[in-house]
Amino acid sequence: MKLLKVDTVDEARRKLLDCCAKIMPRTEERGLLDVAGRILAEDKYSKENIPPYRRSIMDGYAVRSKDLGAAGDMIPTMLKESGEVVLGVDPAGLTVEPGQCVYVPTGGYVPEGADAVVMVEYCERFGDGMLAVSKSAAAGENVVSIGEDVSEGELILKKGRKLRPQDIGVMAACGVTSASVLVPWKVTVISTGDELVSPDTVPGPGQIRDINTYTIASRSAEEGFEVVKTISVKDDRDKLASVIEEAKKDSDVVIISGGSSQGKKDMTADLIGEAADQGVLTHGIAAKPGKPTITGFDKKSSTLFIGLPGHPAAALIVYEQTLIKVWRDITGREEERTIRAKVNVNVPSAPGRMTFQLVKLGEGDIPEAIPIFARSGMIAPVSSADGYFVMSENQEGIRPGDMVDVHLWK
Amino acid sequence: MKLLKVDTVDEARRKLLDCCAKIMPRTEERGLLDVAGRILAEDKYSKENIPPYRRSIMDGYAVRSKDLGAAGDMIPTMLKESGEVVLGVDPAGLTVEPGQCVYVPTGGYVPEGADAVVMVEYCERFGDGMLAVSKSAAAGENVVSIGEDVSEGELILKKGRKLRPQDIGVMAACGVTSASVLVPWKVTVISTGDELVSPDTVPGPGQIRDINTYTIASRSAEEGFEVVKTISVKDDRDKLASVIEEAKKDSDVVIISGGSSQGKKDMTADLIGEAADQGVLTHGIAAKPGKPTITGFDKKSSTLFIGLPGHPAAALIVYEQTLIKVWRDITGREEERTIRAKVNVNVPSAPGRMTFQLVKLGEGDIPEAIPIFARSGMIAPVSSADGYFVMSENQEGIRPGDMVDVHLWK
Repeated sequence: MKLLKVDTVDEARRKLLDCCAKIMPRTEERGLLDVAGRILAEDKYSKENIPPYRRSIMDGYAVRSKDLGAAGDMIPTMLKESGEVVLGVDPAGLTVEPGQCVYVPTGGYVPEGADAVVMVEYCERFGDGMLAVSKSAAAGENVVSIGEDVSEGELILKKGRKLRPQDIGVMAACGVTSASVLVPWKVTVISTGDELVSPDTVPGPGQIRDINTYTIASRSAEEGFEVVKTISVKDDRDKLASVIEEAKKDSDVVIISGGSSQGKKDMTADLIGEAADQGVLTHGIAAKPGKPTITGFDKKSSTLFIGLPGHPAAALIVYEQTLIKVWRDITGREEERTIRAKVNVNVPSAPGRMTFQLVKLGEGDIPEAIPIFARSGMIAPVSSADGYFVMSENQEGIRPGDMVDVHLWK
Repeated sequence: MKLLKVDTVDEARRKLLDCCAKIMPRTEERGLLDVAGRILAEDKYSKENIPPYRRSIMDGYAVRSKDLGAAGDMIPTMLKESGEVVLGVDPAGLTVEPGQCVYVPTGGYVPEGADAVVMVEYCERFGDGMLAVSKSAAAGENVVSIGEDVSEGELILKKGRKLRPQDIGVMAACGVTSASVLVPWKVTVISTGDELVSPDTVPGPGQIRDINTYTIASRSAEEGFEVVKTISVKDDRDKLASVIEEAKKDSDVVIISGGSSQGKKDMTADLIGEAADQGVLTHGIAAKPGKPTITGFDKKSSTLFIGLPGHPAAALIVYEQTLIKVWRDITGREEERTIRAKVNVNVPSAPGRMTFQLVKLGEGDIPEAIPIFARSGMIAPVSSADGYFVMSENQEGIRPGDMVDVHLWK
């Protein structure tokens, strides 16, 4: 057995990041209705003031506030209607002179001269174009000023933003019709192992159903990656090597899952070493669970490799804490919000290793993070967990009452 | 102007729910790699014990723990290797008799007779099939017992679960190869208004760019709905009526956005009244913002209608608090987790109305919810918000120090 120095999770990630500096993800320009959930590849500025004209937020009458100084319930002020704003019709020429008012619907243009809008509820038509207004108005009341929503030249969305519906809305408002977004990584998920059978097979003695292909492929899709292929391969070195070579052609990332035993791990490392012109970057990480993690990089084809541990919880969390974090780093995407929670029991950490602890999250002002212990290879505890927290390499475990940041699975 | 009794948000939702009782969403059976993010339509049980045999969580030797009572660093116990478990190979006939041991790789079958596995690190081969073990073992050590992960007949996933990667993993482990999931609603988003122009047009005086179509269509897709069509229509009653009739044919939900002024709202209500054989259910809700919300139901074509307010924040939040909540209710989907946060300022509520308050979320053990005020029609504040909290109809506003539950936008 080779003696190898394991990397910390941070070191493993930094090595991957260094490689990614050479393969920044591609970008593509897409229309507004096709960018939801995608990651913005550029800062977006508005070229215009929004609104471009003063806009009423009510159905009402545009007035000069000075005219209504004395207006009240008992003694209304009489104004002369000098016109009406119709949505979608150019209000050219409409003005509000002293003693005048103009009807304006919600969203409508507030004509020159007016500085406020009085809601229809406080107005009564008296015929002959006269309007009784029973309420005074402050300057600016019910009027959105030019550029109050978005001003010309303003940064509306930052690079790295995962575009939400309202972000798409703000682009629409500013006349931005498309956005440069990142082309998600293409990933191939290869599972290896003579003992692995597919879920539709009843495992015989010594066999086990393939889990990680399904979790890792689904997690990849959840992150927005394109899953090019999932493929299960027996422990046939030549066959595996050719599957990996094939995957290099059309994938940014090749994930090899399964093979958690010592012999298997070595074969995965050897195969990555052969396929990657920059060789194996990391052979083992200081993480619990997650030690048998292997990474590599092929510069020529711009392909990242990761061999994930066989333990389903480890595979999922290591995938998130290495490759997915790297993806977020290079794309400038904000980290997901973690939830502050309190632990009420002792939780040991593994000295010198980053420790990942599955939890179920309680309710309350400060929710309780209730540890869930999954023994190696178990999947049900992972499915019942709401997320996990991380203890750093130097942390001496958690004592009752300690606060942790829970990475929430949705 | 018609005088109409507005519904509370709860009443509006209950009316929609009553209609939905007649149009439970369709289900479809899909393979494991195609159900991520979909909502499970049935309770899923395991028909098997997982693992189906006792499994080692280490590379090591299967032993009888009693044999190692005296084993230690100084005086190892000698055992006879009686065989080796190979992954994927039927270990039929392999047993561990007193004084014997069997090599077992991680994930491998623990043979009859053995009750523990000692890690390879504590074992040394002495030739002639003899092994020196320098550590005692507790019964059960490093062995996952039959059914310890999932037991036969156990409920593994509940109806209504939005399937996460690890949920798909647990199904794979249990030999579940497909799942009955809900067919998402098909929605058509219609925007109306003579004043609306598309984002690629510079609005002239009296015109405004269409925002809500983009936010509502994107939000629909985010929820998993299928957006059949988005269409912008001028305020032409006949044209609108025919677009609505068309949408009824292939949509579960017809969303009409725009038209927030009084006259427009009446037209939307009239059109929904004509298109829906059960008529208008709700004409106005007691919400701030969000009053001009209209719902209806056509039983014959099983179509829900909603006319959303023009205010982008209101449209988005009302959509979430009515239709999307109804979808979650009928599908049994768990509510999204809200974040408990503290407000440090006074926030007024609208008496008798449910009030939605946009916020930005701070950091810390108890994050601060910082109110963001969006005047009617503004979109930038909605895009800068992390979410919103709800004040109920009877709540007298928020005082500094009050805790709220923030609905987080991702």
